[in-house]
Amino acid sequence: MTKLTDGEVETRLADLDGWSEMNGSIQRTYNFDDFVASMSFVNKISELAERIGHHPDILIRFGKVTLTLTTHDATGVTEQDFQFAADADALS
Amino acid sequence: MTKLTDGEVETRLADLDGWSEMNGSIQRTYNFDDFVASMSFVNKISELAERIGHHPDILIRFGKVTLTLTTHDATGVTEQDFQFAADADALS
Repeated sequence: MTKLTDGEVETRLADLDGWSEMNGSIQRTYNFDDFVASMSFVNKISELAERIGHHPDILIRFGKVTLTLTTHDATGVTEQDFQFAADADALS
Repeated sequence: MTKLTDGEVETRLADLDGWSEMNGSIQRTYNFDDFVASMSFVNKISELAERIGHHPDILIRFGKVTLTLTTHDATGVTEQDFQFAADADALS
């Protein structure tokens, strides 16, 4: 996986809703009705992460879940992060 | 629930391993072997949180899980947070 350039990240972000660049990662916060709904989403994300071997940082604050994605081996954002972002959106 | 004084928080923290005060919250990071072990702990924490109606912020970073506890109604740390911390330690 090759690290995307800043311009490539910007272009790919324009195709997504709610995602932004943050210190070499991409990040989105999802809003849910309550903690149980948040955890349901987090468990789906967990299954996806294990299936493809790519693990976002996950922050749960009651009805809010923030995913932060980066590719450590590339020390930056790669196509794999954007694929994960799209898959996560589909699960939300 | 009454907000504990700084001195009370300090005294209670001395009885726990790995917990520290952080901006009106208490916080601990637990280390696990992998993401699956982290998620197993998070799901136990989730059940505890729902059972007693007190929800920590939960940050999952692969094999690390950080719990941050505060009592919003008291705008600070209360006995309920320390009870949760002890229960979380027992689940880890």
